[in-house]
Amino acid sequence: MTQQADPRPAGARRVGIADVAALAGVSPGTASKALNGRGNLREETRQRVRAAAEQLGFAPNSVARSLLSGRTFTVGIITTDSYGRFSIPIMRGVEDSLGVGEMIAFLCDSRDDPIREQHHLRKLLERQVDGLIVAGRRTDARQPLRDKLPVPVVYAFARSANPDDCSVVSDERGAAKLAVEHLVKTGRRRIAHITGPHSHASSRERAIGTTEALAELSMELISEPLFGSWTETWGRFAAAQLLRTHPDVDGVFCGSDVVARGVADGLREAGVSLPTQVGIVGVDNWGVVAEAARPPLTTVDLGLEEIGHRAGDLLLAAIDGHPAPGIHVVSSHLVVRES
Amino acid sequence: MTQQADPRPAGARRVGIADVAALAGVSPGTASKALNGRGNLREETRQRVRAAAEQLGFAPNSVARSLLSGRTFTVGIITTDSYGRFSIPIMRGVEDSLGVGEMIAFLCDSRDDPIREQHHLRKLLERQVDGLIVAGRRTDARQPLRDKLPVPVVYAFARSANPDDCSVVSDERGAAKLAVEHLVKTGRRRIAHITGPHSHASSRERAIGTTEALAELSMELISEPLFGSWTETWGRFAAAQLLRTHPDVDGVFCGSDVVARGVADGLREAGVSLPTQVGIVGVDNWGVVAEAARPPLTTVDLGLEEIGHRAGDLLLAAIDGHPAPGIHVVSSHLVVRES
Repeated sequence: MTQQADPRPAGARRVGIADVAALAGVSPGTASKALNGRGNLREETRQRVRAAAEQLGFAPNSVARSLLSGRTFTVGIITTDSYGRFSIPIMRGVEDSLGVGEMIAFLCDSRDDPIREQHHLRKLLERQVDGLIVAGRRTDARQPLRDKLPVPVVYAFARSANPDDCSVVSDERGAAKLAVEHLVKTGRRRIAHITGPHSHASSRERAIGTTEALAELSMELISEPLFGSWTETWGRFAAAQLLRTHPDVDGVFCGSDVVARGVADGLREAGVSLPTQVGIVGVDNWGVVAEAARPPLTTVDLGLEEIGHRAGDLLLAAIDGHPAPGIHVVSSHLVVRES
Repeated sequence: MTQQADPRPAGARRVGIADVAALAGVSPGTASKALNGRGNLREETRQRVRAAAEQLGFAPNSVARSLLSGRTFTVGIITTDSYGRFSIPIMRGVEDSLGVGEMIAFLCDSRDDPIREQHHLRKLLERQVDGLIVAGRRTDARQPLRDKLPVPVVYAFARSANPDDCSVVSDERGAAKLAVEHLVKTGRRRIAHITGPHSHASSRERAIGTTEALAELSMELISEPLFGSWTETWGRFAAAQLLRTHPDVDGVFCGSDVVARGVADGLREAGVSLPTQVGIVGVDNWGVVAEAARPPLTTVDLGLEEIGHRAGDLLLAAIDGHPAPGIHVVSSHLVVRES
């Protein structure tokens, strides 16, 4: 194997702090202090060490620098989302925030298992991460990792149940408002809402947001929100049911793209012409679902990448001593396709 | 913010090597050497230091231990797959392999951008990772990260173009064989193949595997393989085309679940009864697609998680000085649903 040519770690061949110390005529401890601006050293000593470091081209390796600075320039991301649908864009946003510069992220997948989560937490703290991001896959509030963590934590997407923690969340009601306003603006007046399980906060919040947005326009849903599951099968079934009870429906706001895709198939297969007779809006902007639907779905993008970006920014600020506790809401935006 | 109560890193409050050294009456350097089995120390000194460490409950922190052992117990995973469909199961397998014990992974997303990849590589090497895993999202061979890396590398899913590197790949031809054998075993005799772009190695290899598997059974495809794109739209279009030229088709092996879903819709909407008249097999076992298809798809699972697991195992072995260069093939398996 080519890369086996030299099995020593990269740093082993570098100029070390001991070389710098020897050239400057001081102990390695003194050399460290001089280079890190710590300790009570004479300015003359400090300058001699710096000159020696420069002369030798000494670049402290990250691990050594960590020991000296008390920071590791690493953060841990714990995700509960083994599926990747939500964690990947969040992760990408975090990565953008941590930047092209210094920080780098450990990713741990807790697979919705609290024991695994605590195990990852221990491993990350052992590695002296400077901070933690916890990314959930449901918007329901979650228990904090634990009390009195030695590093700052930011919760992304799933907020912490402790309001004093720092959480970055999507705007669930705002998402519903965008969808409703789009349907009304495109001439829909008899609007239904088909969504996921009532036990999920996102279903409940989006349903409330739908009712509120319609009320602001002096309108109301043609029927109670239809709660079900996050599946296409449910979407198809609910569409058929809706056509039986309300054949005059002309707009459906669906709680997710998956449900919306099922609703579109159900309506189309019942002979409804889309989008002429009925307009449909989903939530998620999940490419593989929204783009493959017939017609391609107009949908609300919850801004997952932006949530990750904000979480990263807030974590960096907290690490620098400027925590911003509370709930930070990231706006959604509408992606208009053909439905 | 609750977690701001104590801003010092976790290790800062622990018993340090200096405490151990003081109790044992030696210098911190001597204490380090004693605990790490290095240096020329008298056995009596070594034992005194160990006793002091035990008495104080001294646990060296990971960062310090890294400096002493020359290992960081971290690996870097560089993925090209910003979408997450392929990288997430591979990542999960790697995590399982690295185990509940010591290792932990940095995840970097190169987003198919070579400049970003080299940047991540530098960051990871700077952090003295013990090894690297490169996870691709296409099975096409890729250029090695670079020559003469100081740590072992394992390529997962997308093999390295350098045959002396260590790569773990899926069994593309074997996947096609499983699909063909299932179709034939369930009574299909007039089999077609609809797949992705000819420019993708996975399309070409699966097509070759299809022809070979049929030849072993003294059969052949009813038409040339239909190459197109990895989309449902292509699947629907190809199904319609196939029905025009070969209305007697009774089995279709599709190069992916997404294509298979389009083929299933295309056939069903043309009045073909599934699976009675035509049997369909996909590749990927991608839940959101395979389970939502009508009927739910029988498909070949390429064993992505197992690929990750093997990559992790091979990397750990290489880190321990036992590299296994060459191409390691992970078997596929058939997941039978209703199609």
